[in-house]
Amino acid sequence: MSNAQKYGAGIWHFATYVDRYATDGYGPPRTLLEMIDMAGQVEDLSVVDINYPFADPSISLDQVEDALKRNGLEVIGITPEIYTRKFAKGAFTNPDAGVRRAAAEMIDDAADVVRRFGASYVKLWPGQDGWDYPFQVDYQQVWKHSVEGIAELAEKHSDLKFVIEYKPREPRVHMSYDSVARTLLGIEKMGLPNVGILLDFGHALYGGESPADSAQLAIDYGRLFGMDVNDNLRGWDDDLVAGTVHPIELFEFFYTLRKNNWEGVWQLDQFPFREDPIAAATSAINFLKTIERALDTLDFAAMAEAQANHDAVTALDMAREALFTAYRK
Amino acid sequence: MSNAQKYGAGIWHFATYVDRYATDGYGPPRTLLEMIDMAGQVEDLSVVDINYPFADPSISLDQVEDALKRNGLEVIGITPEIYTRKFAKGAFTNPDAGVRRAAAEMIDDAADVVRRFGASYVKLWPGQDGWDYPFQVDYQQVWKHSVEGIAELAEKHSDLKFVIEYKPREPRVHMSYDSVARTLLGIEKMGLPNVGILLDFGHALYGGESPADSAQLAIDYGRLFGMDVNDNLRGWDDDLVAGTVHPIELFEFFYTLRKNNWEGVWQLDQFPFREDPIAAATSAINFLKTIERALDTLDFAAMAEAQANHDAVTALDMAREALFTAYRK
Amino acid sequence: MSNAQKYGAGIWHFATYVDRYATDGYGPPRTLLEMIDMAGQVEDLSVVDINYPFADPSISLDQVEDALKRNGLEVIGITPEIYTRKFAKGAFTNPDAGVRRAAAEMIDDAADVVRRFGASYVKLWPGQDGWDYPFQVDYQQVWKHSVEGIAELAEKHSDLKFVIEYKPREPRVHMSYDSVARTLLGIEKMGLPNVGILLDFGHALYGGESPADSAQLAIDYGRLFGMDVNDNLRGWDDDLVAGTVHPIELFEFFYTLRKNNWEGVWQLDQFPFREDPIAAATSAINFLKTIERALDTLDFAAMAEAQANHDAVTALDMAREALFTAYRK
Amino acid sequence: MSNAQKYGAGIWHFATYVDRYATDGYGPPRTLLEMIDMAGQVEDLSVVDINYPFADPSISLDQVEDALKRNGLEVIGITPEIYTRKFAKGAFTNPDAGVRRAAAEMIDDAADVVRRFGASYVKLWPGQDGWDYPFQVDYQQVWKHSVEGIAELAEKHSDLKFVIEYKPREPRVHMSYDSVARTLLGIEKMGLPNVGILLDFGHALYGGESPADSAQLAIDYGRLFGMDVNDNLRGWDDDLVAGTVHPIELFEFFYTLRKNNWEGVWQLDQFPFREDPIAAATSAINFLKTIERALDTLDFAAMAEAQANHDAVTALDMAREALFTAYRK
Repeated sequence: MSNAQKYGAGIWHFATYVDRYATDGYGPPRTLLEMIDMAGQVEDLSVVDINYPFADPSISLDQVEDALKRNGLEVIGITPEIYTRKFAKGAFTNPDAGVRRAAAEMIDDAADVVRRFGASYVKLWPGQDGWDYPFQVDYQQVWKHSVEGIAELAEKHSDLKFVIEYKPREPRVHMSYDSVARTLLGIEKMGLPNVGILLDFGHALYGGESPADSAQLAIDYGRLFGMDVNDNLRGWDDDLVAGTVHPIELFEFFYTLRKNNWEGVWQLDQFPFREDPIAAATSAINFLKTIERALDTLDFAAMAEAQANHDAVTALDMAREALFTAYRK
Repeated sequence: MSNAQKYGAGIWHFATYVDRYATDGYGPPRTLLEMIDMAGQVEDLSVVDINYPFADPSISLDQVEDALKRNGLEVIGITPEIYTRKFAKGAFTNPDAGVRRAAAEMIDDAADVVRRFGASYVKLWPGQDGWDYPFQVDYQQVWKHSVEGIAELAEKHSDLKFVIEYKPREPRVHMSYDSVARTLLGIEKMGLPNVGILLDFGHALYGGESPADSAQLAIDYGRLFGMDVNDNLRGWDDDLVAGTVHPIELFEFFYTLRKNNWEGVWQLDQFPFREDPIAAATSAINFLKTIERALDTLDFAAMAEAQANHDAVTALDMAREALFTAYRK
Repeated sequence: MSNAQKYGAGIWHFATYVDRYATDGYGPPRTLLEMIDMAGQVEDLSVVDINYPFADPSISLDQVEDALKRNGLEVIGITPEIYTRKFAKGAFTNPDAGVRRAAAEMIDDAADVVRRFGASYVKLWPGQDGWDYPFQVDYQQVWKHSVEGIAELAEKHSDLKFVIEYKPREPRVHMSYDSVARTLLGIEKMGLPNVGILLDFGHALYGGESPADSAQLAIDYGRLFGMDVNDNLRGWDDDLVAGTVHPIELFEFFYTLRKNNWEGVWQLDQFPFREDPIAAATSAINFLKTIERALDTLDFAAMAEAQANHDAVTALDMAREALFTAYRK
Repeated sequence: MSNAQKYGAGIWHFATYVDRYATDGYGPPRTLLEMIDMAGQVEDLSVVDINYPFADPSISLDQVEDALKRNGLEVIGITPEIYTRKFAKGAFTNPDAGVRRAAAEMIDDAADVVRRFGASYVKLWPGQDGWDYPFQVDYQQVWKHSVEGIAELAEKHSDLKFVIEYKPREPRVHMSYDSVARTLLGIEKMGLPNVGILLDFGHALYGGESPADSAQLAIDYGRLFGMDVNDNLRGWDDDLVAGTVHPIELFEFFYTLRKNNWEGVWQLDQFPFREDPIAAATSAINFLKTIERALDTLDFAAMAEAQANHDAVTALDMAREALFTAYRK
């Protein structure tokens, strides 16, 4: 089974970036087509998530499709850009009803692109929905808008899946979908079968969660629709290369998926600001393949027994032995 | 109405403490009766939360009742000590079924004390329930035990209220009831009317929540059964004197309670390791009374309008004006 | 004396911003001249810090001078843009010697602009100097370059002052000038009279320092050459409006400056991503003026006595009384 | 050379602990002699650090010496207990001059024990020196006392080495010796040859430092006199088993020591609250021996080249290959 494991990446992995200081960017801009061609150079990468609308409006869906085809890439999800200038004060929770409608329309369009590419889901990452200051918002209203805005879209496009990618903060100082539990509360309130979670390992980690616990909880609610990985120092969404700081907790995350027979693409959500994107993706996937091998050798029954006793030392010795001895360059 | 506001404190506010370094304690031990007499010296303090069983088993309920009476104090809650040596690996989630039963029995006894004192609730703070290391536990099992353990007790004692005080961590590196949203998920799963949240302002703050948002969410689920306050530096449960670091967010917290017509005791959960407990309580209550006065002068309609626009600058200018000008020594 | 207190701001307070998500910016771009005209609209603002080179190279120094003059603004410092694309892997610590030279040349130019405007200092904020990953750099080399690079420039331009603005991180995951103590170590190593610290209240706060302690330490080494303020949630450089989250620690910071007879401009370093910049500056300065008034009424001798006893409750009651009762809208 | 590597542990690794909740302790108390006998059971452990005065005053130095001898253990350092009840408001910085003298006397006694056991140093960990609240102390005074208090002792006992173990916080909310750079500033001010740093990997990590960078800096000042390791989640001094969360940064730490030809004991500072202490020490030392083997195979020249280019991906791939393939159960 594990031979068939698919690896994916957000296409932005191959972009260049700006931030509030390097306003001229960390490199010359790349077109979406160039990004796709770079993704195609990463061995073992076969799936991408694409932002919509395209930064360059002159690029057509046909061109994108061609580029994907020539690189052997499928589309898993479409991420509508509901966090750009227009949505600076929120998409679903914007104080202006007109902006909230604009967000819904952008997502309608993204839904069509999902259908066009036969992708798995519309991915919603409402990074501007939340607040910055105490006393800034009516929390009841913000949460109501957060939940109802997504519910309406999911009901309307009942043929599609919607995934919510929660995150504690950034760009807002506090995001309304800030944690796995809060997101599940919202999804339960919606009561719709087609809304789930896209669990970002790094978001869970820097939100103070144990990512494997977050995965288990989402699975237990039947809502783990997707996932991606990266790494950070637990204080910010650094989007570092997966496995460079927290290899053991990353292994535990995939151990939990395997234990629950969860099947899906193992995706990267990395921002290699100063690294070669192909090298960064290759290194990460190499580590994920190490994890795959380690899962094949780990004694799940013995691990379950150690865990039944809450025996951390034994469990960790087993985990490290399986992981480290599975490493190949 | 606000004239009638009652102020309370965990009786441990008047204890001396030990920690892993000052194992000889931050002062000579005090008996429960001495603590009650100290609490009685704090003007405006009329309600206490008491741990059970008493550290000194020779103290009787009658003695405690006498001490309370002579100090004009009522009991709001009883906190069973489900976080001592026996429960080092958890109360509800202990790997040993016998220890889980012992926890339930201790809580049964605490329920009787609640009835004896006519208190409002059994307070559950499962500080040892959780994990320390990756791979240490089966998260599904830990959460199942966390939820079922409390549900069984709440069903059995359906005449009483149970409140869960969540906290991100300490003493466990990760507590299973770690956040407002996770706790609400658990309570919704229980589906019982008599289980709610005791919201600790400081726990919300250092868990990365906006405490006022946490309060609103718990209220919207009908589950805000109690609350207490203190302060910290957002990185740990410092249990500092309320209002010394985050006066504005503390004000926002009570603004949210008032806006929702939430009524209940305003409690302190402070650990004055090196301060005079009476001075620490008096200073905190003085600040809470400032907040009360500020709520009486704040223009709620104008605040709602600023918040409808997400206008942080206007909202904060209003809030600070109301709060600061209400201050009396 | 306090009547003469000058207030300043980084001119970027009046810019619009981009980040890695809102790549189209949080508003339409503003020219430097427009920013200066906006700064001119803030009552009580009389000093600015300006980035160099100007984003728009067609703007001349004469034009800037005119704009400043018509708005009654002086220049306190020039901040060379040693954190843009070319310097993505560092300015002083870039692995490429040519880039290190380019940084030095940009700073030479900035020094000339300091002279041209009669400003007080060249401000160095080496935001890209540091590392992101374990094992990425040779720490000895990075620190050597950090110290020597600035020492060379300060020796060359011995008629000018250079200030280093340290910060824990962002955009690098770890900045080499990360704290007040590390920066003082570097400055002591340089052994030059014209290098000091620009202490950013928010950087100290989110780096786990007590900003007032950082100020005292820099003063004790004779190196507090400048300062600016803002606010944050202690986990990131949020650059919120000063006084909105930590009014008491902000007051303590200025109390420490006053106690040491430190004189200089009180500057803002705020990034009002979603707020009106004029309102954000006005609100902050209003709060700083409250602090000024509070310092005039605070009983310094009584505070010193409380502090000699480490009596936090008394000290804080005094501080809050002075601060809060000084508040005017 | 690496065959001769010595491993050590603070003797408190084998204690049972109390904290503010489990006031009855995480297990029955153990005498110092029992702890030494447990330490003797850890294969490869040959060095200990011992607290003084002994918790049980009836235990004599002779008894301790016998116990050490029969377990084949040497003493590397003596840690005077300058953080117990008497010193709750500080040892060197206590507001009461009498308490400051008491601390000095306790350290005098500890110095004699160092001589008695032929140990390497007096270890100073001033965990109660600092502050909890804004406005609580005069920072200049606190730092002056922190520096002068140690300088006086080091001058008096010029035949001995003194090591300062800095830590950001706990039990004080802010410790005065909070970071590597601050401690070096203090040591430079003292200007004595016999005062250095005991670098705790975990303290550096949760203080936001890169521990390998901290080690390099201390080495460059000639002040790295000792070190110990453990692990944590970067938010608190969890004192977890070394190598269970941050194996890569632990490897980088020892890589830095090896690169600088630093020689000394590799010590553990772990608090196995709920684990078997012998298993916890054995697991950690096993991982340290993995690191030793990895250092023997790592290509230092190739690593230096990758670091000269700030090439994180290459450097980390090399590091992980060396580390992981060196793992033996």
